[in-house]
Amino acid sequence: MYVVIMAGGSGTRFWPMSRKDTPKQFLNISGKGPLITETCDRLRPLASDEEMIIVLGDDHVREAKSLLEGRKVHIIAEPMGRNTAPCIGLGAVMAAHLGCDSPIAFMPADHFVANPPGLIESLQAAQSVAKTGAIAILGIVPTRPETGYGYIQWKEEQPAYRVTSFVEKPSLDKARQYVARGDYFWNAGIFVATAQTILKEIEGNLPSLHRGLLRLQKAVGMASFDHVLEEVYAGLESISFDYGVMERTRNPIFVVPCDCGWSDVGSWHSLYELREKERDENDNLTEGECLLIESKKSFVSSRGGRLIACLGLENCLVVDTPDALLVADLRKAQEVRKIIEGLKKSRREDLL
Amino acid sequence: MYVVIMAGGSGTRFWPMSRKDTPKQFLNISGKGPLITETCDRLRPLASDEEMIIVLGDDHVREAKSLLEGRKVHIIAEPMGRNTAPCIGLGAVMAAHLGCDSPIAFMPADHFVANPPGLIESLQAAQSVAKTGAIAILGIVPTRPETGYGYIQWKEEQPAYRVTSFVEKPSLDKARQYVARGDYFWNAGIFVATAQTILKEIEGNLPSLHRGLLRLQKAVGMASFDHVLEEVYAGLESISFDYGVMERTRNPIFVVPCDCGWSDVGSWHSLYELREKERDENDNLTEGECLLIESKKSFVSSRGGRLIACLGLENCLVVDTPDALLVADLRKAQEVRKIIEGLKKSRREDLL
Repeated sequence: MYVVIMAGGSGTRFWPMSRKDTPKQFLNISGKGPLITETCDRLRPLASDEEMIIVLGDDHVREAKSLLEGRKVHIIAEPMGRNTAPCIGLGAVMAAHLGCDSPIAFMPADHFVANPPGLIESLQAAQSVAKTGAIAILGIVPTRPETGYGYIQWKEEQPAYRVTSFVEKPSLDKARQYVARGDYFWNAGIFVATAQTILKEIEGNLPSLHRGLLRLQKAVGMASFDHVLEEVYAGLESISFDYGVMERTRNPIFVVPCDCGWSDVGSWHSLYELREKERDENDNLTEGECLLIESKKSFVSSRGGRLIACLGLENCLVVDTPDALLVADLRKAQEVRKIIEGLKKSRREDLL
Repeated sequence: MYVVIMAGGSGTRFWPMSRKDTPKQFLNISGKGPLITETCDRLRPLASDEEMIIVLGDDHVREAKSLLEGRKVHIIAEPMGRNTAPCIGLGAVMAAHLGCDSPIAFMPADHFVANPPGLIESLQAAQSVAKTGAIAILGIVPTRPETGYGYIQWKEEQPAYRVTSFVEKPSLDKARQYVARGDYFWNAGIFVATAQTILKEIEGNLPSLHRGLLRLQKAVGMASFDHVLEEVYAGLESISFDYGVMERTRNPIFVVPCDCGWSDVGSWHSLYELREKERDENDNLTEGECLLIESKKSFVSSRGGRLIACLGLENCLVVDTPDALLVADLRKAQEVRKIIEGLKKSRREDLL
């Protein structure tokens, strides 16, 4: 099975550890190695290295090649970021060019999966559905009324669950209802479809992108490809596949339930939640040399070479790096973008 | 007027900024220069450099000499710390040796005074009292029910206020009563007395120390002095002048009110309180390059060369240095000694 791994993000939510040159997907934030290599590794039961296509930004090709040295995964660089619709289209074109005419899995490079076999199983089920020509999206069984995720509403329909609507990040009230009702899954942005289906859906819903992809199809494998890719991308609208295709298509989308301990690891706080087993008896999570006194529910990371001493902290996030230090209310960790904005205003782009 | 400045402290309450080699009195924590030079400077209307005697630990002579380079202050090194009674006795012996037979002011090197003229005025009033042969102690007019200070109870008696008792750090309840009653001052450890009075009081209350001081008196100015000093100090009991003399003497002690914006700057929190005017509209005090977002009532000091970004903090203390970082609840800053204990336990004495 071919897999297209989308690694184009320039995530700033793990600042100061994540920077322009090393966005989240390249960080070892889970303690088990860079997320991008973890993503490749967990797919091995399903796909060989030669069947993996990583799509990422120009700036990160070197980093990815060094992380995946010696492995035969395909690495394709987008000349600029244009959100997921062009990325998925490009991945489909590449997979087809490599000889794939069966269903392809598409997924982000920077997510966490506690139970990889659960993911593999769902992807295989999705593969069967996708063979019929439909898009099969994974639906993560929700475990809490998370307001940071998108939801997928479904109804039962032969031969599977059919998506009835996509709901963007809901209010807490709504999220609670969704979880209680039981007919909502989380949208992990993981789906399976053939290249043909992808291109057909793009043709119907994003005709301008489709014209670009046809140009790429003609140029792929030729010396002029990089040049054509650059030209095509420059003219493309930046749009997500969810918004541009999933929510617009009139063709049925099927959802395959998936219970794999998934998280998008969207913030320091969600990472803290995720690494529950590594926390101490006071619910502190520490990395590097830390001395915590009368402190609880805190996440303290010392990767800057300094000892961090903490006294009387609660719900505190401390992330130290050689040139920048973040101290925050751990529960407000998803607002780290405000720091990014502040740094831009104070002309410290060098720290981004 | 001669002044004996006691600079023997090895304060750890400003860790990680204060270390063994640079205790509080050598730090520029007030933003106006090292406390020890500030202490000398504010006494200039009263004493010339030649009339200032700084008593400190062996380890800190070099640091003090470099800070006071070009000034003719006397610097005397104690071979080891023995608390304030021996220090004050030694200061009195030295002042007498230098030809002083009038009242001498004794005071710590590491305090803060917002209004130096108020201090000078009180010291001059104390000088008049001390000429009668009594000890005159300054009584700081209390401005709040501080539980971290010692108190002096007094009653009116001609020609001045007479001390009736010394009270160590009281409970909050007691402190509130003291401030409400109006017959208590704070004890700043600043007093004025002649060398003769000091030696007589030590003779009556600490006879063993007195014998040591007599040996020093004989050796002062001779080549053997350092050797005798070391021998004498090695045999001395470690005891404070407050406990050993002030609280024991049956001779009257007079207290001179002093309203000089005094603080012993005993913790990061008291420093934060002190530098009220430097705080921003959200009551944050910052040093160095800091970016504070949605944060209030916090003290963030970046002297480690790193930018410190803060998000959603309240009552937080962040002190960064090149090799250690402290993050604490600002209101618990007086418990920094717990960090010191922790560092000793984890064999990181190099950070003390």
